[in-house]
Amino acid sequence: MSSITFHDIVGARRVVSRFLQPTPLIRYPELSDLLGFNAYIKHENHQPTGSFKVRGGLNFMSRLPEPQKRRGVITVTSGNNGQSIAYAAKRFGVHATVVVPNGNNPEKNSAMSALGAELVEGGADFDEARELCERLRVKRELYYVDPLNEPALFHGVGTYSLEIFEQLPDVSTIIVPIGGGSGACGAITVARAINPDVKVIGVQAENAPAVYLSWKAGRKVQTDSCQTVADGLATRVPSDFPFSILRDGISQIVLVGEDEIRAALRMMLRYTHNLVEAAAAASLSAARKLKSDLSSENVVMVMTGANLDTETLKSILK
Amino acid sequence: MSSITFHDIVGARRVVSRFLQPTPLIRYPELSDLLGFNAYIKHENHQPTGSFKVRGGLNFMSRLPEPQKRRGVITVTSGNNGQSIAYAAKRFGVHATVVVPNGNNPEKNSAMSALGAELVEGGADFDEARELCERLRVKRELYYVDPLNEPALFHGVGTYSLEIFEQLPDVSTIIVPIGGGSGACGAITVARAINPDVKVIGVQAENAPAVYLSWKAGRKVQTDSCQTVADGLATRVPSDFPFSILRDGISQIVLVGEDEIRAALRMMLRYTHNLVEAAAAASLSAARKLKSDLSSENVVMVMTGANLDTETLKSILK
Repeated sequence: MSSITFHDIVGARRVVSRFLQPTPLIRYPELSDLLGFNAYIKHENHQPTGSFKVRGGLNFMSRLPEPQKRRGVITVTSGNNGQSIAYAAKRFGVHATVVVPNGNNPEKNSAMSALGAELVEGGADFDEARELCERLRVKRELYYVDPLNEPALFHGVGTYSLEIFEQLPDVSTIIVPIGGGSGACGAITVARAINPDVKVIGVQAENAPAVYLSWKAGRKVQTDSCQTVADGLATRVPSDFPFSILRDGISQIVLVGEDEIRAALRMMLRYTHNLVEAAAAASLSAARKLKSDLSSENVVMVMTGANLDTETLKSILK
Repeated sequence: MSSITFHDIVGARRVVSRFLQPTPLIRYPELSDLLGFNAYIKHENHQPTGSFKVRGGLNFMSRLPEPQKRRGVITVTSGNNGQSIAYAAKRFGVHATVVVPNGNNPEKNSAMSALGAELVEGGADFDEARELCERLRVKRELYYVDPLNEPALFHGVGTYSLEIFEQLPDVSTIIVPIGGGSGACGAITVARAINPDVKVIGVQAENAPAVYLSWKAGRKVQTDSCQTVADGLATRVPSDFPFSILRDGISQIVLVGEDEIRAALRMMLRYTHNLVEAAAAASLSAARKLKSDLSSENVVMVMTGANLDTETLKSILK
């Protein structure tokens, strides 16, 4: 089975840093006062596609063999992975087809189209869209970029953790939302290489706890549903590749409720003046729950993305 | 009278870059499609205090003579200048007193306190707060940091324009909101030195047009009121120092209405997923008005700040 090494992540940075500057790591005084620890935010929401995933897309695309670059790539997405692939494909002159389920958020669809991707809508849900993606892949001889199992995506994503250790050498805890798990896998790998005392804490939604349940059970567990306002956390079936790393590498996984996520998002607007998507606010929800355990520590909360649509923003502010 | 030279701004960067990394300049594909030009945003809203002013505060504080550093500084503010001075004072171990008018936005006040400033509330409006500030300055032998006339603030602020020319060498137009005018003065000075063909376009609110009227008249004109949702643009009396630079240096000043500012702020949320304050959204309002003049150009809109309070955000989304 594939894995992630520190070497892979260091190598990915050579590519990523050609296109992206490091994102800021900022200490917020008011959040620090409220939480009783040094509250730092890693601003992946400042990426040009509004999400950390763009690091993975660029690293992947740079490594794609030339003949396959000419034929093109295809992926399936509800948003951030598709924007990442579209953005990277444009930079490398590759044609990207992005399959989304019917009824996918129109703001996310138009963002992907504007980045130059060919958008195909089909299938009632993510799994059906995935089947359509597979049929198109075969028919058009495209390379399928598997968002949950493609190692080059994980290696690229890991570069934000490298930046965290450089920006804050005495970091003690990193809190990462877990959807597919690529961010957490990167943080685990980098912490092991640089300072194994650093805790990597994952966050999932109570309504979408597949990775949490799997971690508890020591084997993959899937759930029947994953309805959460944090669409970036909405995973029903854990993937083998990330799970093999998370199982023994994560210090802890915390579950947070829908109201807790909404409250954290309002706090983010109030105290940091950043628009974040609900999955990103989950880092802060978890930090609030773990407040007493983290007292006086240097805690980094990863703000994974900014892509919150206006209707959801309105409903959260109500 | 004091002035700003390119040399001052280059010198300020030595200081500023010790504390702050360059802010991103991002091209937004959907905005570009809508506007018919290459729409770039300079993300000063990503600064640690949520505003470009922090560049000025750091440059100023680094140049303050040691004896004065020990006695401390005082300034008057409704928000962003105070956060800048508080942030810089903390970095340099200087005591900062910040005077705000009674009834000043409590979110802004608590942000300044959390940064370590001593907050003093007093006076019914900015002018009365200014008088209180003067009395305290004399009594406590503090250095008064004049937000509208202190050259070191202007030199620091100018560094964002230096970054723009490095990040996008073929920029053709820079659109800058004008409150005090420091941002526009920096852009004018840098453009003159690097490429005088670049247009620097200022933006003011129809409800707060003092600098616009002064520019039209060729002499300082003040207004009786300056009620606008864009509090960063709410200047009633233009200052001598910036006006002496803007008068002949600005290519054009555009006035935008309250509804236009609100609409632009909603567009910013929708297409860039950044929370910005109303003054920052004014750049986009102006760009929409000038759409046909700017066709196919490389246009940089300066997003000057992020500090929008939650109540105003709610009212704008309604």
